[in-house]
Amino acid sequence: MKIFNIKLMTLAAIGLVSTLQAQEKQEENLIQYAHPIIGTAKMGHTFPGASSPFGSVQLSPDTDTIPYAVDGHYNPDVYKYCAGYQYEDPTIVGFSHTHFSGTGHSDLGDFLIMPTTGELQLNPGTEDHPENGYRSVFSHENETSEPGYYSVLLDDHNIKAELTATTRTGMHHYTFPKADDAHIILDLTSGIYNYEEKNVWTFLRVENDTLITGFRQTHGWARTRTVYFAMSFSKPFKNYGYQKGDSYVYRGFWGRFDQTHNFPEIAGTKIKAYFDFDTEEGEQIDVKFALSPVSSAGALANMKAEIPDWDFEKTKAQVQHNWNTELNKIKVETLTEEDKINFYTAMYHAFLGPTVYMDVDGQYKGLDMNTHTAEGFTNYTSFSLWDTYRALHPFFNFIQPERNRDMVKSMMAHQEQSVHHMLPIWSHYANENWCMIGYHSASVIADAIVKGNVGFDTEKALEACVATANVTYFDGIGEYIEKGYVPEDKSGASVSKTLEYAYDDWAIAQAAKKLGKQDIYETFSKRAENYKNVYDKSIGFMRPKLSDGTFKKQFDALDTHGQGFIEGNSWNYSLYVPQDPASMITMMGGKEQFTTHLDSLFAMELPDKYFANTEDISREGIIGNYVHGNEPSHHVVYLYNWTNAPWKSNDKIRMILRTMYHKGADGLGGNDDYGQMSAWYIFSSLGFYPVAPGSEDYAVGSPLVKEATVHLENGKVLTVEAQKQSEKNKYVQKVLWNGKAVTKPVVTHSELMKGGKLTFVMGRKPNNKLYQ
Amino acid sequence: MKIFNIKLMTLAAIGLVSTLQAQEKQEENLIQYAHPIIGTAKMGHTFPGASSPFGSVQLSPDTDTIPYAVDGHYNPDVYKYCAGYQYEDPTIVGFSHTHFSGTGHSDLGDFLIMPTTGELQLNPGTEDHPENGYRSVFSHENETSEPGYYSVLLDDHNIKAELTATTRTGMHHYTFPKADDAHIILDLTSGIYNYEEKNVWTFLRVENDTLITGFRQTHGWARTRTVYFAMSFSKPFKNYGYQKGDSYVYRGFWGRFDQTHNFPEIAGTKIKAYFDFDTEEGEQIDVKFALSPVSSAGALANMKAEIPDWDFEKTKAQVQHNWNTELNKIKVETLTEEDKINFYTAMYHAFLGPTVYMDVDGQYKGLDMNTHTAEGFTNYTSFSLWDTYRALHPFFNFIQPERNRDMVKSMMAHQEQSVHHMLPIWSHYANENWCMIGYHSASVIADAIVKGNVGFDTEKALEACVATANVTYFDGIGEYIEKGYVPEDKSGASVSKTLEYAYDDWAIAQAAKKLGKQDIYETFSKRAENYKNVYDKSIGFMRPKLSDGTFKKQFDALDTHGQGFIEGNSWNYSLYVPQDPASMITMMGGKEQFTTHLDSLFAMELPDKYFANTEDISREGIIGNYVHGNEPSHHVVYLYNWTNAPWKSNDKIRMILRTMYHKGADGLGGNDDYGQMSAWYIFSSLGFYPVAPGSEDYAVGSPLVKEATVHLENGKVLTVEAQKQSEKNKYVQKVLWNGKAVTKPVVTHSELMKGGKLTFVMGRKPNNKLYQ
Repeated sequence: MKIFNIKLMTLAAIGLVSTLQAQEKQEENLIQYAHPIIGTAKMGHTFPGASSPFGSVQLSPDTDTIPYAVDGHYNPDVYKYCAGYQYEDPTIVGFSHTHFSGTGHSDLGDFLIMPTTGELQLNPGTEDHPENGYRSVFSHENETSEPGYYSVLLDDHNIKAELTATTRTGMHHYTFPKADDAHIILDLTSGIYNYEEKNVWTFLRVENDTLITGFRQTHGWARTRTVYFAMSFSKPFKNYGYQKGDSYVYRGFWGRFDQTHNFPEIAGTKIKAYFDFDTEEGEQIDVKFALSPVSSAGALANMKAEIPDWDFEKTKAQVQHNWNTELNKIKVETLTEEDKINFYTAMYHAFLGPTVYMDVDGQYKGLDMNTHTAEGFTNYTSFSLWDTYRALHPFFNFIQPERNRDMVKSMMAHQEQSVHHMLPIWSHYANENWCMIGYHSASVIADAIVKGNVGFDTEKALEACVATANVTYFDGIGEYIEKGYVPEDKSGASVSKTLEYAYDDWAIAQAAKKLGKQDIYETFSKRAENYKNVYDKSIGFMRPKLSDGTFKKQFDALDTHGQGFIEGNSWNYSLYVPQDPASMITMMGGKEQFTTHLDSLFAMELPDKYFANTEDISREGIIGNYVHGNEPSHHVVYLYNWTNAPWKSNDKIRMILRTMYHKGADGLGGNDDYGQMSAWYIFSSLGFYPVAPGSEDYAVGSPLVKEATVHLENGKVLTVEAQKQSEKNKYVQKVLWNGKAVTKPVVTHSELMKGGKLTFVMGRKPNNKLYQ
Repeated sequence: MKIFNIKLMTLAAIGLVSTLQAQEKQEENLIQYAHPIIGTAKMGHTFPGASSPFGSVQLSPDTDTIPYAVDGHYNPDVYKYCAGYQYEDPTIVGFSHTHFSGTGHSDLGDFLIMPTTGELQLNPGTEDHPENGYRSVFSHENETSEPGYYSVLLDDHNIKAELTATTRTGMHHYTFPKADDAHIILDLTSGIYNYEEKNVWTFLRVENDTLITGFRQTHGWARTRTVYFAMSFSKPFKNYGYQKGDSYVYRGFWGRFDQTHNFPEIAGTKIKAYFDFDTEEGEQIDVKFALSPVSSAGALANMKAEIPDWDFEKTKAQVQHNWNTELNKIKVETLTEEDKINFYTAMYHAFLGPTVYMDVDGQYKGLDMNTHTAEGFTNYTSFSLWDTYRALHPFFNFIQPERNRDMVKSMMAHQEQSVHHMLPIWSHYANENWCMIGYHSASVIADAIVKGNVGFDTEKALEACVATANVTYFDGIGEYIEKGYVPEDKSGASVSKTLEYAYDDWAIAQAAKKLGKQDIYETFSKRAENYKNVYDKSIGFMRPKLSDGTFKKQFDALDTHGQGFIEGNSWNYSLYVPQDPASMITMMGGKEQFTTHLDSLFAMELPDKYFANTEDISREGIIGNYVHGNEPSHHVVYLYNWTNAPWKSNDKIRMILRTMYHKGADGLGGNDDYGQMSAWYIFSSLGFYPVAPGSEDYAVGSPLVKEATVHLENGKVLTVEAQKQSEKNKYVQKVLWNGKAVTKPVVTHSELMKGGKLTFVMGRKPNNKLYQ
């Protein structure tokens, strides 16, 4: 065990030593196992840069700036750059301050900064000809990526760039060569999922020779989004200027000023600013860059509160200490170092979002574009709910209950501000982007209510769920309520919608039951059975139904496109009745037939044609026809628990854990989806999984860890022990809770939260009698 | 004397009666003499619509919507529509909520509303073919324009439109015919000085079936300007919708909603919204439309605070009562009714701006785009300072001292927020538009300090003046400080700048003297003599000088263009040494020669060629070569006081009062310039004028009133009496202050503010011995 001892000297200087020394005794250096680089190749869509846990700032290198559309047509290459960085790329364009983690769509990439030397160049250049722009070639050999810290050598400029980030403030630490032509560029035109008109307005003021303020207002995935900033240099610049690519003039301005040199204000849509310095060999120039959802004054206050000094090492140490504290919430012993890396990387990724969305004084912008104050809670944004309701929010109820309560409060505030009176679908930065389907805020809220992780106004929260589920003009809900299913001819992906609405309705019913709201319980329990209406018994699959009540004629249960589903084919999606697997299994022919069906899902070979023209699945992300890279399957392997062969999940869980998650940049089998893939990994590694959020029950699987010590927020300790754990002993022989045999493949949240010991006895062969 | 008795019944209902009854005894109905229609024809650039005194909302009809530029070239016709309305136009496009009064440049015209009947039309149509759009033909016979109230019959729709406006909220009162196709259109694309890209962003939410909120963000004369609104209907609409002329899509939105019908949110740059109603014959639908500089929540709060009820008549009565109170501050007896109309119309125009710029809770947006709170003062904007420093702000020190103090505080807040650390030049809506020259905030501040109308931090105010006067990169100030003049080859209009800087410097010196800041006094007193550096003795005129110290060779003292001046030729501008007319006269050859010079200014005939290609002057606005329509001449007639023939001003003052000001739409001889022309009228009518703001002295002229009773804010009463006043008796024979002969043509501010009686004895012939 390596004791956490980073920068003790520095911390001594700031009076944190006694606290840290106390914690040291317990805190292992776990950040060494969390590798932000994992998932940065291929489709993981994670970013390698610096962030604090749930931080507003994700300060990270962008390796290309791809236009969203070319000649009015969507540019498919842009998908690769959801997080701004692709591991195989040879150049870095610059370091921008906002990035989603692991998403399959994007936005952001705000405020790209690049330090350069030599002749000033204000265009980014191209990957093929980086010398024609400010970007730089780099090498992974000269790159370090840790939680809260990133560094790289920018070869073209001979500048070492180091980055860290507190919750609302990024800090850049640049080591320059000797130069009388050093520059720091702030490119306000750069962005992710960028397009020509994305910048609605940008505004920049040079307050003095070290401080810049302003904002960037965009129309991207978010319709009306403004991010305010304050940027501070550790050294005064000697000159500064702008390049302006738009035709907006500053009226009334004729000849009054020379705007081309050291002129302290500019506004428009296509602005690039630069700041010139003389540097000595090895001279370090730091930049603090704070964000605010409300104002540049807010950004400046955030900066002053979070990084009062010019001490990069101290800031980095604080940030990494915060990360280590988060990671230490679960300590694991694993079979291999790679398992440990995967585990803590998953913990890291799970704690990147939702992101804090308010100033240090609690102010934030609401959907109504008014400034609100979060009274008594931390306001969060970036809710990728179609993904994260499944395992990430349940994981938060388990390991981050306070944050999850605040996330629920944030969603409730969103609902209050929403002109549709709807809870978030996929929300970011005071906007609803409506991505994906369902009303899964209801699941998140119900899960918290059912598990007793409340502290918010539960009745109001339930009302918000009910209101959301009854917005009849949204996405087929009107027809769904009327007919009991979404008709495919009225609203595409109709089966996916019907199934997910039915699950969400069940979740609402569970919350209503807990709160004693019998009428809501009954209404939504009835709606929860709507999954039956899209099951075609004649073929044994869920199938899209038309308004007239007939099933859609042409149908391919293997195809993910145009068949009534989204991010999943009928083979996978037909299993999406997490609220009642037993009834579903009966409907689908009973336990025996269903077991065979499930076996074939993992065993079958999907023909090549199904991989054409899709961003969503690739060979890496699937096992047979089981698509782990898409979330609708995440509960599937645990469905064996409802058959007579629960043991059949065991090797498959291990197979998924070991094939879909690796160390290395290409270590993720699909988009991490803001931690959902990671939460699946963590739960499954620990041996249990929340098949139906809104229930107290976890389905018991097969652990990958040898031992795990979970420090719960309530002060209790939960230990998971996998006796005889080994590469070959992947089958659970026996499960004990506090020494007592677990006779059904279920452990409950409330039991686990009391602390105690969950013991798995592992073995080489399946235990056919498990739970019998 | 007609007693003020408007809407006593209504007022009784709201408990205002006792207050009003008390005031009634003193308050004459003076709003009957204030005709907002004056100046709406030709170049007056006033608006006929409804506003409260110094109100944020100017709810007024726009008679055309002219694009700012056609094919990238400035459209000269747009100048006519600075206030949105031209009297000769046959149609009204709609009613928008913001208008400058009397300015020579514009912006605004926000949130145009038009009630219509018949088939929905969302384009405005043209003047020639109003039937092709939503605009309507109207007739002046069916039009009423009063302070705080405007009404018109919209012929094409058979709708009577009535408007009133509190400080932050407009109220529309529409009387419809019977119709099942009545509409109220909100055109967010319409505006004044509009152009294709002026809308940076607009945002609209239908909160419920009577409430709309949103904002309009523009890049116009103001670079980055956002106005927030809340709009409330007295009756729920039956349907609503939008037309969207831009290509901005709502990403993530595909198929989730039907955006085309009753969809409650929209954003983009080219939005027109409509709201449908069924109406009975004579049915009235009211609209409250509140503005905020900060947020739609602020707008809604403003609305609720200012117009809590749905009672148009009550609101109108309150607004008109407020106007009457303002107008009653000076009661005059005049020779003719037209004089009285001109006087109270001038009072009305003088009290339209600067405009209140903060929410009811004191919040407003600053130049840094942050939200600020005005602590202990009312924040104002729309400072047309090059015009208004001359007589309007001195008039405010006289009759609105509290407001003027708050205006100074507003200017100081501006300076604190300015990235240039400069006081306003021409500022509006949290923006500096840099219009015209000088740093005349210094004059406004100095005038207040010298006259003792303080209550603001005078030392800080002086520092702000000094800082502004030393921004070396602004408009030739660097060269001015270095060389003692602005070189024409470095900065155009160099003589105007030199002269006005010198005057402003003198004003700063006076403030410094009053505050005991000897060093500042000396520095700026020296700078105040810089006017001498641009006087060319060889020709007897001010003349542009080049960097090398030589005068510009080609020169025409009559031309207003390209000669080193702006809005004035050398003939007029050479007289611009208000701080020291005596020295100027000596410099120009002595009193005799100067008298002749001044005589010729008024007597000469300006050749036609000097009227070509100019917006600034026209035959109507000039007398001889004296250009009353441009402000640099406003003090000129009073310069006779420094000669041996003060009496020579008398007939000319009367001539200007009687030829440049008339009743009727075309009654103003030039732009009213936010009340500067009006303030000149008021002062001159009363018989005195502030030649050099920053001095206690008023130059005594020749009154037009027979008697005036001025109710000063300090409770004192000043009476001006013109004995033997008549059409022919325009020459002052004798002046008495409280019965004691005035022996120099000067009365001081501090004496007048004590209250008392200023007596003029008038006569038919000049008194050659006056003041001797």
